[in-house]
Amino acid sequence: MSLFGNRHPGWSQGWAPGRTPIQPLTFVLIHGAWADVSFWEGIAAELRRMGHTVYVPEFPGHGTDSHNTNITHSTISQSIAQDIAAHNLYDIVLVGHSFGGTVVQKVAELVPERIRRLVFWNAFVLKDGQSAAEELPPEARAMFEQIRLQSGNDTIMLPFPFFRELFVNLADIGQAKQTYERITPEPAKPLFEKLDLKKFYRLSTPRSYVNLTEDHVMPFGNPNYGWHPHMSNRLGLYRFIQGSGDHMTTAKTDPAMIAMKLYEAGRD
Amino acid sequence: MSLFGNRHPGWSQGWAPGRTPIQPLTFVLIHGAWADVSFWEGIAAELRRMGHTVYVPEFPGHGTDSHNTNITHSTISQSIAQDIAAHNLYDIVLVGHSFGGTVVQKVAELVPERIRRLVFWNAFVLKDGQSAAEELPPEARAMFEQIRLQSGNDTIMLPFPFFRELFVNLADIGQAKQTYERITPEPAKPLFEKLDLKKFYRLSTPRSYVNLTEDHVMPFGNPNYGWHPHMSNRLGLYRFIQGSGDHMTTAKTDPAMIAMKLYEAGRD
Amino acid sequence: MSLFGNRHPGWSQGWAPGRTPIQPLTFVLIHGAWADVSFWEGIAAELRRMGHTVYVPEFPGHGTDSHNTNITHSTISQSIAQDIAAHNLYDIVLVGHSFGGTVVQKVAELVPERIRRLVFWNAFVLKDGQSAAEELPPEARAMFEQIRLQSGNDTIMLPFPFFRELFVNLADIGQAKQTYERITPEPAKPLFEKLDLKKFYRLSTPRSYVNLTEDHVMPFGNPNYGWHPHMSNRLGLYRFIQGSGDHMTTAKTDPAMIAMKLYEAGRD
Repeated sequence: MSLFGNRHPGWSQGWAPGRTPIQPLTFVLIHGAWADVSFWEGIAAELRRMGHTVYVPEFPGHGTDSHNTNITHSTISQSIAQDIAAHNLYDIVLVGHSFGGTVVQKVAELVPERIRRLVFWNAFVLKDGQSAAEELPPEARAMFEQIRLQSGNDTIMLPFPFFRELFVNLADIGQAKQTYERITPEPAKPLFEKLDLKKFYRLSTPRSYVNLTEDHVMPFGNPNYGWHPHMSNRLGLYRFIQGSGDHMTTAKTDPAMIAMKLYEAGRD
Repeated sequence: MSLFGNRHPGWSQGWAPGRTPIQPLTFVLIHGAWADVSFWEGIAAELRRMGHTVYVPEFPGHGTDSHNTNITHSTISQSIAQDIAAHNLYDIVLVGHSFGGTVVQKVAELVPERIRRLVFWNAFVLKDGQSAAEELPPEARAMFEQIRLQSGNDTIMLPFPFFRELFVNLADIGQAKQTYERITPEPAKPLFEKLDLKKFYRLSTPRSYVNLTEDHVMPFGNPNYGWHPHMSNRLGLYRFIQGSGDHMTTAKTDPAMIAMKLYEAGRD
Repeated sequence: MSLFGNRHPGWSQGWAPGRTPIQPLTFVLIHGAWADVSFWEGIAAELRRMGHTVYVPEFPGHGTDSHNTNITHSTISQSIAQDIAAHNLYDIVLVGHSFGGTVVQKVAELVPERIRRLVFWNAFVLKDGQSAAEELPPEARAMFEQIRLQSGNDTIMLPFPFFRELFVNLADIGQAKQTYERITPEPAKPLFEKLDLKKFYRLSTPRSYVNLTEDHVMPFGNPNYGWHPHMSNRLGLYRFIQGSGDHMTTAKTDPAMIAMKLYEAGRD
């Protein structure tokens, strides 16, 4: 029985945790629905402070283009793939948050040779042939379909109580209202579009899933719904990273923590 | 592709996390089985320090009334509803811990106009027509039924090993024994009573669920049992708040953390 | 309605959290597959600093005996039981990590009178008649069977991408590679051996389960697989302790935290 007296040349020798230099990465950050590029502001600033290069593509139907509600999922993914090609980016870590996960899946199909790793942060990972709406529990989907019909311009605006309790549960009421006032109705089409993802499921690009444990947008514990493990497990072999936070507040209140999780997910 | 150069008027502008003043609330705190009002001492003190008003109702069959073992669930909920009315409280945040969740459900039916929000902290949320005992896994329920029969006065005392491993798993043995010595046998009737909760399920009072991740009173991962998500999901649209802790130790060792979680659950 | 004005002699009186002196324990630490006694170095040092006695048995087919690939599960458990008897140890806290859980189960059968408590740390808890391999999801088991066949000496070496993403997901690439370079192929036989555990399931030795929430070696959320709650729940009445970490990195980067969790799991 050894008491370490024999000085094993064990694999713990020589570790210097925390001293390893940061591996500089090129991040491309894709926001979700009811958001625009400003979602990433704090996180992008922290990533740059760490020495990374960060791109935050704006895409059709969001931000300065939010008046354009007649867009398809393909409009979005092709716009981003073109931006990536136009900047001649390679070796990118492509990060998607929430609905942005579906965009990551399609962009990965379009420019696979430019991508080093895919990172899904509480993001949709759809099966081949599925729409994002199909991942919503029946009551939420019915609510969305009704709002869509009543919108007059095929968009969906989140009701405030739904947004406050599920998207920003960790915010105080001031933060919740301020956030809500800035969001705009989301074009409905891409949410209900079934995506051909056959090529995605043939890709061997390394991938990671980042889960924040208080993200309550999807119901917990129902084996048929939810970010993790329901959708994350579709990634096959993936790296798992976890932290504490909700769907939209923590990006603002603790961007340094999120930036570190995205780095842990994105590094080699 | 935007690099934030265009200065989006994004929804992150103007956030000043942590600077929002505390919203003063009126809490009414309902303890669970094998507990009395002293369960809340540390937490109530922390909530008052934050500027909140706190009431901790004593109820039949517990604390100074623990010799009274012939009580029903209705005795308890009516006593608390009467206390709330007698103090003419309005806009209350009604918090239930453990078995106290069933009491919150019935008190919400009795004085709904006085309640601003319901908070369930690792608490039972029963279906209409259910008893708390029905939420116990078969072996635990059989153990409870046997203890009840042998008690001679229709009460249930927790065996120490069961209490130590499941209720105070994070305590040291001194804390565990000290806690155990102070608890008294629990009147059995209310635990086995089937509750009519039709009115509760018609209420639209806002509600929150607080989950401590090391609370092991209920079995984890069995889709048919457990605090969260099994019982929490019965609340429909609810706010989810989470922290680290067990069923009864953390209230004593970290009351400030619990008070903050209850505030995050209770605020607008 | 009491406001604590009546000074209940509640069970919170007299608690002095953190002041309770450490209970000195005798730990025997059993490592898992693809590891040797050096796995425990940092943790053992921290436990000794707390005042505990720590034994780390080396066993056949691992460490200095890693050239010996023709061993059975019984070779391992009997070697450890003999070591424990040879040192005349009593009142031990027997800790198993990962595959070491199966060894704890068999050693508990061999020398039950010497054991105070069993601690499983993200460890296998097999059913009677099961092999560890049967707890792997089909794809992983198929991969292991193929590697075994191709090894030429009935061993299994983990492919690096599998190891990096699932065993050391929280490591940086330098730590991951350094760890990988030190591990040696694991003798395959004990992983595929079906164990008779009838005696284990008749033991009433107190037991605990320690779960690190980012341990991703086993798939999450599949009710048929995984450390916790899938395997932990086989322990019947057990104490649950939890922390943050992955399967092999955290033992090196935060041994003091792990040591504290093992103490919380092991104390009375």
